[in-house]
Amino acid sequence: MLYFTLEEYRERIGKTKKIMEAAGIDVLFVSQPANMYYLTGYDGWSFYVHQGIIVSLDQEEPIWAGRGMDGNGAKLTTFLKEENIRAYADDYVQSKTKHPMMFVADIIKEKRWDKKTIGVEMDQFYFTHRNYVELEKALPKATFKDANLLVNMVRQIKSDHEIRFMKIAGQIAIKVMQTGLDTIAVGVRECDAAAAIARAQYQGTSENGGDYPAIVPLMMAGEGTSTPHLTWTDKKYQQDEPIILELTGVYKHYHAPIARTLFLGTPPPLMNEVSEVVIDGLAKTLQIVKPGVTCEEVEAGWRRAISGTRVVKESRIGYSIGLNYPPDWGEQTMSLRPGDKTVLQPNMTFHIIPGIWEEKVGFEVDATIRITKNGYESLYEFPNKLFVK
Amino acid sequence: MLYFTLEEYRERIGKTKKIMEAAGIDVLFVSQPANMYYLTGYDGWSFYVHQGIIVSLDQEEPIWAGRGMDGNGAKLTTFLKEENIRAYADDYVQSKTKHPMMFVADIIKEKRWDKKTIGVEMDQFYFTHRNYVELEKALPKATFKDANLLVNMVRQIKSDHEIRFMKIAGQIAIKVMQTGLDTIAVGVRECDAAAAIARAQYQGTSENGGDYPAIVPLMMAGEGTSTPHLTWTDKKYQQDEPIILELTGVYKHYHAPIARTLFLGTPPPLMNEVSEVVIDGLAKTLQIVKPGVTCEEVEAGWRRAISGTRVVKESRIGYSIGLNYPPDWGEQTMSLRPGDKTVLQPNMTFHIIPGIWEEKVGFEVDATIRITKNGYESLYEFPNKLFVK
Repeated sequence: MLYFTLEEYRERIGKTKKIMEAAGIDVLFVSQPANMYYLTGYDGWSFYVHQGIIVSLDQEEPIWAGRGMDGNGAKLTTFLKEENIRAYADDYVQSKTKHPMMFVADIIKEKRWDKKTIGVEMDQFYFTHRNYVELEKALPKATFKDANLLVNMVRQIKSDHEIRFMKIAGQIAIKVMQTGLDTIAVGVRECDAAAAIARAQYQGTSENGGDYPAIVPLMMAGEGTSTPHLTWTDKKYQQDEPIILELTGVYKHYHAPIARTLFLGTPPPLMNEVSEVVIDGLAKTLQIVKPGVTCEEVEAGWRRAISGTRVVKESRIGYSIGLNYPPDWGEQTMSLRPGDKTVLQPNMTFHIIPGIWEEKVGFEVDATIRITKNGYESLYEFPNKLFVK
Repeated sequence: MLYFTLEEYRERIGKTKKIMEAAGIDVLFVSQPANMYYLTGYDGWSFYVHQGIIVSLDQEEPIWAGRGMDGNGAKLTTFLKEENIRAYADDYVQSKTKHPMMFVADIIKEKRWDKKTIGVEMDQFYFTHRNYVELEKALPKATFKDANLLVNMVRQIKSDHEIRFMKIAGQIAIKVMQTGLDTIAVGVRECDAAAAIARAQYQGTSENGGDYPAIVPLMMAGEGTSTPHLTWTDKKYQQDEPIILELTGVYKHYHAPIARTLFLGTPPPLMNEVSEVVIDGLAKTLQIVKPGVTCEEVEAGWRRAISGTRVVKESRIGYSIGLNYPPDWGEQTMSLRPGDKTVLQPNMTFHIIPGIWEEKVGFEVDATIRITKNGYESLYEFPNKLFVK
């Protein structure tokens, strides 16, 4: 069930170990599900209990540590030798006395890594404060270091194989958005539109099946378009209602998000004005995207493009995208905003989404792109306009 | 957009404050999304950035603290006064210098709560180690206490209104499982079955629309039935393949999970034997479920029922269920296993699922139940058998 070559996994682990070495980290505990998948192939919705991958500079293969019943899942989805799949008894789960990090600490002690410097992902969901407390208590001789985005940084530049997956996700994204636009109409329940969209996401194309998204369909209607993260209700769509759809195609956990706005009726002048500014602004922003430009320079291009218009945009206009699991499809490394001086490089991938969420008007349009040798390419082609029905 | 009466929210907050008082906690920071929804109605897929609800003994209403763009979401989905919706600037998001907990600490200082005892959910996903570090650094005079399952404990006993929601989820669960069983056949792609199931989940019934589940469809096929948390691929189902479906109906974030097993062909003798033992064992276990019995006594009943058979079951056979968001539909409070001496009370709700995941045979059947005055009732009726096609 491996989706990448052994060579590619080894390369990812090698890059991770290089950063560990440079950061003075001997042993890395990785609990973020996308990072676990990236380094070993491990894939399962088992991240509602504590689990992780231990990478040590003095051992070639990482160690998977997780719940007993998920051990067979690790055997089926990873390339790891059986000795490196370590499963804990079920009484560690949500217990008042035991904690899975005690089990992880036991492995570290057994391997004699307990006097070393251990990196942990201090600000990743799935690494709770209690995780830290238990590791520190069980490993009093260890030194702990923050390795929060260490593996995420390796993920920033995609392999050609990963780009192929993201382009498949892009093909699925087109189907998903078209399904949303086709289904939504006055009198249709929001949940029925969501159902059609989810079906398209999971189904994928006839050649490549889809996967579950790290963020469910965001589909704000009416006054809901004043904010970006609502889902759906069982209300029916109304005449003269704006609808924002922020969706994605997903292939083997790789994402190509797609966002468009639909108006049921005749859009008011303000809506037309804002959509024109944003669509034009996005096009001008994309013109400066190429290797060597920094993240903040891309955002500055956007601000130049919209200056003098009524559109104000305080939040970041995009972020690094790719492989992920709920709750976030972003990679949390690069943001297109002032202060981010990361230099664009080929095979970085971004979701650029200069969304507007005001009480009087909400509008989204986006692009999911890959940086190429000389510029960028879109992961999908879909009309950049305000849809009217 | 409130789904419960103001009175019900006030009651929930009142119960929470009572436990806070008993635990010596003056101020509680709640970051678990289900707990945020439970106390204020807040609903949005914004939990991929840090956010939370601050409950203080000396203020009637909680305070919502979250990202700028989600402030309008809080206005739309909660009953909170505008002064209690506090949104942070976007440069706090995934920043190298700022952190959302600095913003939360500023609110606590402004309110002069910074010398008090502050409870935080130390082992909940969404409360990272970094969250703790930042709060502790910004509030040096505060005392921190673990309030990990404090609100989850209040959630254990459902109101009649919540039970009504869970029964609607039960009606959806029947449709969802039937869709899965109807769709899966030799030659069908796993992703297409997943698509049909997701569609049924989101769609709900004609009276009540569905919602997204806290756990996506788990649908192990073939050798995958040796483990419980795999999702799907784009492989086609094969002749003579066992398939485990662990699904759910969801209504406004309330869950009624449903699990059944299907065999495409003629089941081998071992599969028939195991399924009979488990189905019979579940029926006998349910016979002893009533108020006054403890969680561990229920599990002991299961072990008595299967003793002398070939079935061995190391893991817990069930847990408290209800309202939740990804990644977990369980409430993490009660488990049906040795050592859990919690006494069953009316309007507690459980997912009882004595799953078997062995290399030679995997089988699931379950019941989602509510404790009544004298016994229990199922949230749905669906045949308890090994399905064969």
